[in-house]
Amino acid sequence: MNRIVAVLGRGLVPADTPLLRADDLGAVRGDGVFETMHVRAGAPWLLDEHLARMINSADRLDLDLPPVTDMIELARQACSAWPHTEEGALRLVCTRGPEDGGPPTVYATLAPVSPKLKTYRAGGVAVATLPLGVTTHARTPAPWLLGGVKSVSYAMNMACQRWAVRNGYDDALWLSTDGYALEAPTSTLLWQVGGELLTTPTSTGVLAGTTARFVLDRAGDVGLTAGEKLVTPSELLGSQGVWLASSVRGLVEITAIDGAALPTAAKTRSLQDLVSYPV
Amino acid sequence: MNRIVAVLGRGLVPADTPLLRADDLGAVRGDGVFETMHVRAGAPWLLDEHLARMINSADRLDLDLPPVTDMIELARQACSAWPHTEEGALRLVCTRGPEDGGPPTVYATLAPVSPKLKTYRAGGVAVATLPLGVTTHARTPAPWLLGGVKSVSYAMNMACQRWAVRNGYDDALWLSTDGYALEAPTSTLLWQVGGELLTTPTSTGVLAGTTARFVLDRAGDVGLTAGEKLVTPSELLGSQGVWLASSVRGLVEITAIDGAALPTAAKTRSLQDLVSYPV
Repeated sequence: MNRIVAVLGRGLVPADTPLLRADDLGAVRGDGVFETMHVRAGAPWLLDEHLARMINSADRLDLDLPPVTDMIELARQACSAWPHTEEGALRLVCTRGPEDGGPPTVYATLAPVSPKLKTYRAGGVAVATLPLGVTTHARTPAPWLLGGVKSVSYAMNMACQRWAVRNGYDDALWLSTDGYALEAPTSTLLWQVGGELLTTPTSTGVLAGTTARFVLDRAGDVGLTAGEKLVTPSELLGSQGVWLASSVRGLVEITAIDGAALPTAAKTRSLQDLVSYPV
Repeated sequence: MNRIVAVLGRGLVPADTPLLRADDLGAVRGDGVFETMHVRAGAPWLLDEHLARMINSADRLDLDLPPVTDMIELARQACSAWPHTEEGALRLVCTRGPEDGGPPTVYATLAPVSPKLKTYRAGGVAVATLPLGVTTHARTPAPWLLGGVKSVSYAMNMACQRWAVRNGYDDALWLSTDGYALEAPTSTLLWQVGGELLTTPTSTGVLAGTTARFVLDRAGDVGLTAGEKLVTPSELLGSQGVWLASSVRGLVEITAIDGAALPTAAKTRSLQDLVSYPV
C-alpha cells in the first residue's frame, strides 16, 4: 500500500504533493506537534488517548490545535483509503504554520509499518544505553525544556537511533546523568520485577507512553500489578523482562543491553497478546 | 520588501508556494540543518563562515548537503531579488527530504529583519536565566546530543524565548546545571572583564557563534583581547559589559539579568561598529 496524505480542510491529496511553505515553522524551527497511531481494521487504535496527548503537547507549545472533531475527521479521511486487512502507521501533524502568521499546518500521513519494526516484535531488540545529559529531576521544574511534549523537533532522537545502528545495536535507551534508564528515542520502557510491571515516572520528563499505558492498565490480565519506578541498567539486567512499547512497533522485547544478553522474558507473548499487534 | 524564496534547482518561486511534502523529515522529525545570515548591500555577510558551520552540522547529522558551490548559487539567487539598500535575513535550509528516501529538500528564504530585533540594537535586552538541564561537560562526550549542531529542531529554543517574553523579558539566557551561563536560544554570549572580551567555550556544547567569532577576532581593534571562559550570572553582573551576538540581530547589549540591571557597557558602540549593522 502506498503512502496516503490527508490535509485538514482539503481531504486526500497525492502523497508527493508539496504541502508546507518554505517558511513553515514546522520545517524551519521544528515548531509543531505530532502523534503516531497504529491503524488496524481500517481505524486508528487509541485515537482518543493520542489526541489527548497531542492537545497537551500543543498547549505546552502555545500552539492552536484545531478542534478535536476536526482531528478525528482528518484521521478518518486518511484511514478511509487504507485497506482494512493491512496494519498501518498514521501520523497526525500540526505545525505553527507560516513564519509571518497564518493558520497552523495540519495534516495526516498513513504509511505501511516498516518491515524492520515488524521483525523486532518477534525477534526483540538489542539496545545501547546513551546518556541524555539530564538528571531525572531536571525537566519537571523547567517546562521550557519540553519534557513530556511530543514536538516534531526529533533531530536528537533520530541522531541517537542512527548512533545505535551505526554501532551495531537496534535502538538506543536513554540514561539520566544520575544513572537511571529513562526511555528510548521513540518508545517507552517497561520491565518486570517479580509480579510487577513497571515503567519510568513521567516526572522524569519522559513522554507518557500511550501503548505502555494501555498495557499497564491491563497488567492484571496477565497476572501482574502495575507501577512506576526509577531503574538502573544493571537492575534491568536482573529483571524478569524488559520491553519497549510504542504505537507502531507495539511491544518489543529487549534482548540485550550494551551487549549483555537478557534472559528470555516469559511474559512477552502474553503482553503482546494484550495489544494485539501482528507478530 | 516581501519574503523571497529560492529553491535549489528551481530558482525563485513565490513565497507562498507549497514546497515540502507532508512526509518531509524536516517537517515531521525536525531532521535538517539551517543557517541564517545578514544580508547587506545585496549579499550575505560571512557566507563562507556560515556555510562551513552548515557543512559541519550536516556531517554531524549524516545529512548530504549539496556541494558548497550549489549553496552559494542558491544564496545568490535569493539575494538577486533583494534591494541593495535594505538589510535582510537570509536562511539556508537543508532537510533530509521525503521519509521514504529521495533527495534532501534545499532552499533559501530571505525576509526583512524583524523590527523588534532592530530595536534591541539600540535599546538592549533584558534576559531571564533559564536552566538548560545539562552540565557544561555533558554534551561534548555525547555527540548524539547534537551540541554545536544547528538543526531545525528548535522547538525548545522557541519555547524558551516564549517563556521569557510571557514573563516580561526580551530573551532567555541558558544556564548549565553547574551554574554557568551558556548561550541564548538564538544567539551567542559575549562579555567584557577588564580588557578582555570573552565567550563561552564550545566544549560546553554551545553553538559556535559566527558573528561572535567575527567580533572576537577583531577585539584588538577596540582595545580588547579575546578569550574563552565559563562565567556565572553573578560574574556577568560584575562585568564591564554583556552582549548577545547573532547574524540577524548583530550585537545587542544585555541591560538586565533576571531583573538586576547591568551598568551601561562603554564598549557597546565600538563593538557594534565592528559588525556594521544599522543601529
